[in-house]
Amino acid sequence: MHILVLGGAGMVGRKFIERLARDAVLGGEPVTRVTAQDVVPAAPLAAAPFDVESVVSDLSLPGEAEALVAARPELIVHLAAIVSGEAEADFNKGYRINLDGTRQLFEAIRRVGGGYRPRVVFTSSIAVFGAPFHDRIEDEFFTTPLTSYGTQKAIGELLLCDYTRRGFFDGVAIRLPTICVRPGRPNKAASGFFSNIIREPLNGEEAVLPVCDQVRHWHASPRSAVGFLVHAATMDLAAIGARRALTMPGYSCTVAEQIEALRKVAGESVVKRIRREPDPVIDGIVAGWPRDFDPQRALALGFRAESSFEEIIRVHIEDELHGTFAT
Amino acid sequence: MHILVLGGAGMVGRKFIERLARDAVLGGEPVTRVTAQDVVPAAPLAAAPFDVESVVSDLSLPGEAEALVAARPELIVHLAAIVSGEAEADFNKGYRINLDGTRQLFEAIRRVGGGYRPRVVFTSSIAVFGAPFHDRIEDEFFTTPLTSYGTQKAIGELLLCDYTRRGFFDGVAIRLPTICVRPGRPNKAASGFFSNIIREPLNGEEAVLPVCDQVRHWHASPRSAVGFLVHAATMDLAAIGARRALTMPGYSCTVAEQIEALRKVAGESVVKRIRREPDPVIDGIVAGWPRDFDPQRALALGFRAESSFEEIIRVHIEDELHGTFAT
Repeated sequence: MHILVLGGAGMVGRKFIERLARDAVLGGEPVTRVTAQDVVPAAPLAAAPFDVESVVSDLSLPGEAEALVAARPELIVHLAAIVSGEAEADFNKGYRINLDGTRQLFEAIRRVGGGYRPRVVFTSSIAVFGAPFHDRIEDEFFTTPLTSYGTQKAIGELLLCDYTRRGFFDGVAIRLPTICVRPGRPNKAASGFFSNIIREPLNGEEAVLPVCDQVRHWHASPRSAVGFLVHAATMDLAAIGARRALTMPGYSCTVAEQIEALRKVAGESVVKRIRREPDPVIDGIVAGWPRDFDPQRALALGFRAESSFEEIIRVHIEDELHGTFAT
Repeated sequence: MHILVLGGAGMVGRKFIERLARDAVLGGEPVTRVTAQDVVPAAPLAAAPFDVESVVSDLSLPGEAEALVAARPELIVHLAAIVSGEAEADFNKGYRINLDGTRQLFEAIRRVGGGYRPRVVFTSSIAVFGAPFHDRIEDEFFTTPLTSYGTQKAIGELLLCDYTRRGFFDGVAIRLPTICVRPGRPNKAASGFFSNIIREPLNGEEAVLPVCDQVRHWHASPRSAVGFLVHAATMDLAAIGARRALTMPGYSCTVAEQIEALRKVAGESVVKRIRREPDPVIDGIVAGWPRDFDPQRALALGFRAESSFEEIIRVHIEDELHGTFAT
């Protein structure tokens, strides 16, 4: 099985390829080749039981998508995107990569012809929803994005459903929760603090909490995100029908509950490294974000996430910290 | 006020321009110029108190949208589209006109710059919804189109909302009901019979009813469709917020109720010209169509349609038949 991963150098892409390397099979089929495309080279794997090639390209340029699908990969995982903040700051770039890039990928697949009909897994986002919304957003709630990024993801979902309905490929779009705990250094994303207040204290570092403790949000671990990709890539599609965009499961909790979970898992000395420094700007941004979902369809189709925030913290300690942390 | 009408040679476009010619003003402002663009020449008006120019062009070709907006029309009414059946039969053409054409129009407006920010009214469709749905579709119900046409309209709505949010223009997308009674000759559209069974008997001709009497559907007259355009073009947008795609009001009734209304308005002799000839193919297509809506937002914003099917028939007799029909 040949797998093409677009955005293969990103955090989720890298973890997905690492999991493939560990499992060696996907859906019972041996993985023989992985192509990791991105705008920067993907870090080489320590070891993999299959060929891995890193392709550096810009999906939105003419011919690039065609070159990638010419080898007829059986599975295409499309993670490549300009992130929310950058798509808002650079209108042209966001539309070029997130809309044109996605459409050119879908068109390239369609044009291969000769019965080629790969599985396509597209990562969408809860950013397809825009306030005001219900406290728990249902599967049938409408998508009214309030960012260009969310607009581009919603359009990607529509295209994926139509190309699937027309028989050009077999698509599944998965709307990821906020990924928590995100590994790496703190970044300037407005959502960064949800991870920072867990990751940094566990590293013995101070973390800033810019919002009040009652802020509620929707989380899943990087391990769950990879699990969603694997399930979307291998699930039986007989039951899914024409509605191919699915809100993934996650765990909804307040910042207070996040901190309490950290206390239970790592103790008061770790929690003390969180410093409250209210930032009205971040508070305002976060107020417009979804807080909770009722993702019945995804659950019925077998997608699974963590069922407590303690579990999300333990996954981070296992997967990123070799089971230990700074007490 | 200079008004650009894309799709100005179509049925709704022509009626909109005729109404402008009658009113001479729009929202209290004198209409000074109307540009009617289409792929075929717009039929000349008998008389108009403003300059009318007919432009024949393909909106999807490079430079065409730019040429149309260069004169900075204050109002742009975008009706141009490949219809549902053709967009399904010709995948490339549907996406080229309905998606690329719309996006190129929006981009051309954005690129004018210099504070140019016109009102843009875009006609969408209830085809953005796909079965299964609730008996009455609410304003917050999700858009899961089951045709390429519906997909293209849903994408147009998303783009319109994002371009509006970013301040490039002031957009309103209106989802039209099935227009009934549609003037002209019977056509092969699967929805044609809803109009045929009224129009043809009133003309003294036989009409074929291919579905059972219990089929329920969502209707508004051509006069209401023009009214929607006028209202969307002139309404105060202070109350509309970021959600610019609105399901227009309409009248929901069964075929039996349509026929009963015809009996009341025109008598049994006219009704007798309807011939039942069940067609399982059309029955199957129509089964997947929306039957009823609860368009609270559009009603609250002041959009109005007919409140009975008799009224829809009377509007047809007044506007198309000079007040008479074949008894």
